[in-house]
This record gives sequence, C-alpha cells and structure tokens, in this order.
Amino acid sequence: MDKPQPPPCLGNISVVLTRTSHPANIGSAARAMKTMGIIQMILVSPNLMVTSVTPEPSPFDPTSPGSFKLPEESFILAAGAADVLENVKVFATLKDALAEQNIACALTSRKRELTAALHTPRELAPEIINHAQNGQKVALVFGNETFGLSIEEVLQCNRLMTINGNPDYFSLNLAQAVQVISYEIFSHIDLPLTRLEQAVELANRAQVEGMVRHMEDVMQNVGFFERRNEVRLMRRMQRLFDRANVEREEIDILRGFFKQIEKSSKSS
Amino acid sequence: MDKPQPPPCLGNISVVLTRTSHPANIGSAARAMKTMGIIQMILVSPNLMVTSVTPEPSPFDPTSPGSFKLPEESFILAAGAADVLENVKVFATLKDALAEQNIACALTSRKRELTAALHTPRELAPEIINHAQNGQKVALVFGNETFGLSIEEVLQCNRLMTINGNPDYFSLNLAQAVQVISYEIFSHIDLPLTRLEQAVELANRAQVEGMVRHMEDVMQNVGFFERRNEVRLMRRMQRLFDRANVEREEIDILRGFFKQIEKSSKSS
Repeated sequence: MDKPQPPPCLGNISVVLTRTSHPANIGSAARAMKTMGIIQMILVSPNLMVTSVTPEPSPFDPTSPGSFKLPEESFILAAGAADVLENVKVFATLKDALAEQNIACALTSRKRELTAALHTPRELAPEIINHAQNGQKVALVFGNETFGLSIEEVLQCNRLMTINGNPDYFSLNLAQAVQVISYEIFSHIDLPLTRLEQAVELANRAQVEGMVRHMEDVMQNVGFFERRNEVRLMRRMQRLFDRANVEREEIDILRGFFKQIEKSSKSS
Repeated sequence: MDKPQPPPCLGNISVVLTRTSHPANIGSAARAMKTMGIIQMILVSPNLMVTSVTPEPSPFDPTSPGSFKLPEESFILAAGAADVLENVKVFATLKDALAEQNIACALTSRKRELTAALHTPRELAPEIINHAQNGQKVALVFGNETFGLSIEEVLQCNRLMTINGNPDYFSLNLAQAVQVISYEIFSHIDLPLTRLEQAVELANRAQVEGMVRHMEDVMQNVGFFERRNEVRLMRRMQRLFDRANVEREEIDILRGFFKQIEKSSKSS
C-alpha cells in the first residue's frame, strides 16, 4: 500500500523567506512547513553566515546562485525535512522570486503604514487553497527575523495577512509564524471547500507589474502626471490590480488598449 | 492609556507539560503560549538536567516542590516570557496537576489505542473558550517530547485532541504543538482592537459602471475595437473591476486618466 501523501494542491504553495539572518531559522522553518505538507521553499538573499560555535562562512553570492549551499546548521534544525532544503530555490531579490507567482501573501504587522486590507490567515486560507487547486501559484512571504518585511517588499505582494495574538507580548519567531500559517492552510483542506470560482488562468506577478508599468508610461506620455503625485498614484493603481486577481486575458486586453493609445497619439 | 491586554478568560486556561526532557523546551513553550495570551504553565515532573554546553544540574525533587528552580536555559529560550516561568506551578504527577481543572484536553495521536472521540483543536476551541469564559479551568495537556502522553496520562483527560498534518512527515516539536493549539484558541476570540482594517470608501455600482463606460468611449475613440468584439471585451473589463472592490478615489484616478487621453488626442 502506498504511503498516504499530503493533498497535491499544496505543491502549488511556496514559503518565501526574505533576507533571513540565521541559517538555523531556515531549517526550523523547513520543518514547520513540511509538517503541514508544504514543501517548496524559496529564499531571497539569505544571510548564510553561521553565528554559533563553529563558524562556517558561506555568504550568499547573488551573482552565482548555482554555487548556493546551505550550511550544516540549517540541516540540523530541519530534522527530517532535509528534502525541503535540498530543493530550495534562491533569488537575489523578492521581485525575481515572485515573478512567476500568481498570488503573493505578505505576512506583516505594519497596520498603520498600509492602506490595503489586512486579513487573518483564516480569512485568506480558503482563497489560497482555491487558487492552489486551480493550478495557480501561491507564495507565502515572510520577512527578516528582526525587521519583518519592508514596506517595499510588502508592496510587491497582492495579499496582506497578519497573525493576531497577545497584544501585550507578541514575538512569534520565524518558524512559529511559518508553523501557524501552514497549519491554518492545512486545516482547511479536510473541509468541503465551496468551489465557486471557475478555473481561470491568473496573471502572474511579473505580468501584472508589466501591465501597470505600461499604464504608467502611457499616463506619462499623455501628460497625466502634471500636478499629480506619480508615485502615490501608481501605488494606488498597483493596489487596485493586486486586489483584482487579474486574469492573463485581461492583461492582454489592457495592454492592447495602451498600445492603441500610443499608436493613436503618434499618428494623429 | 492602558496597554491592551489579552482577553481575561485566557487566564483560566493552562498549558500542562508532562515529563519534559529538556529545560530549553519549557522556555520555548512559554514563549509560544504567551504570544497567544495564555500565561499559566504547569509542569509535571520535568527533567531539569541541562544537556548543552554548561551543565547546570538541578533535577526536580518531587518531595520538595518549594525548592523548584528552572535552569537558566529555560529562561534564555523564553525570551520575553520569563514571567510565565516565574509563575509556573509544578506537580509530581499529572493526577495532582489536573485535580483542580474542569476540562483537561490531551494532545495525542494515539488514534488506534483510544476509543474516546478524537477532535481537532478547531473543533474543541469554542467549547474551551466557552468554559473559560464561564470561569471553568481548562488544561491543555502535552506529553513528553519523544513519547507524547502515555495511555494512562491520556485517560486522565476528558477531551482528546490531535493536530492533523502531513501524513508523510509529522514531527511538530513540543513548542510548535503548543503554538498551534494556543493560536487556534486565540483565533476564536474576537479582539476588537485587532480588526484595524481601515475604512475605505468603496465606489458604488453606478460609479464603477460610469468609469467602465468612460473607458469604452476612450477605447472607441482611439480605435481599439477594430477587429475586436466590443461587447465581449467590455464584459471582461466590467468583470475585472467588479472583482476588484474599486475604491472611489481609484475611480477618480482612472477617469482623470481617460480625460487626459481624450484631451491629448484632441490637442495633438
């Protein structure tokens, strides 16, 4: 008899660790996610310097990701999840890491600085599973152990989530946060999910960003930014399309529209 | 202004750690529970021998619980949760520890050996909170790191719970299990202060429709519909913005953009 396996849709979900400070935390996170059937880990510019007794310096060199090797410390903490570490993907920037993802959920507690809606993992889990079941790629994005995700990193994601807890003492460490989110997602899989959304091909992050940049070019060309705050305005537009789960076909329509504006203003 | 506090009913909930092998795990568990507002820890016959670099032998002597002192290692791992360790209660047996509890929930995966109903934490959490709110004492009972709870220990509890996860790899450590259960309980308590989503002014249906009609005019004017199915295409656009929960301010931005396109194609 075959061994029971975690639900295959979890294969479309990745844990993205951004600028981790300690290799040990990468191992603990690998263990935490694997307990809940999530096995794809993505690292963004990790610090691989080991700080404990035996120094084993191997800082990540973004110019040659092929040379990437996690220190032994990561593997020790990973316990039986070494396979997660062996199959890890590494990127120099979060932007690169998210390029092929359809949904990117940032874990953040920057409530005051953000205007986008902040959800609990419980609120987001059904949508995450729904997308994963439809073959869409979902990234769960975690920040640096001490500082979390920067505003710029958060803005590259199209879903924001926060773990609520003791308002008087909140210091979930990285592996604990990965544990809670992974558990929350797994806990929804046994439940009969209402599959209302039809399977559609969602645009990935790079396609949405490319479309918004194209929009910005056109806005620039038609003189829309005069007396307007371009950065703020484009952030609003990015956020609008981030919320919308833009489909690939809709990207094509919008870019076709933008091209036509460019053409018509040249020819006239 | 007073600091926000966790809901007082959590004061009736205890985490019971039975026969822990390592003092470090007591510290990690203290941290995990406190992040979710649970601060009463009860230890049953813990092994307090420190196994790491600096041996600090202080085995628990059940005959004189007054002499009890946790090793420094526990405090290091507890981070900001030292108060949990300072207020810990210690008992020689689980039976003694549970004597004053009303509900004792055993965490176990001994599915085959038990006949009582095994619940997920999500199923049990509402009952646990209900009891705690009614002033009943609830114990969450965790076993030894390696062996879990013995059958005899499980049988002393009146609720059995299990954490479901990856059937192919399940090795939540003690602190992770405490984290998951504590999170699950906390997540059922609605804290008004955590619902900080900023109120945004969503566009109404007429405003969204007006914006999409404006878009259609512009598309028409720049010649975008030549050889394209206008009706189908505009239905897609309508659907995109229907999904997006467009805010009023975003409508203004988009319409400003469309006006500018019209202006620039007239003037050129």
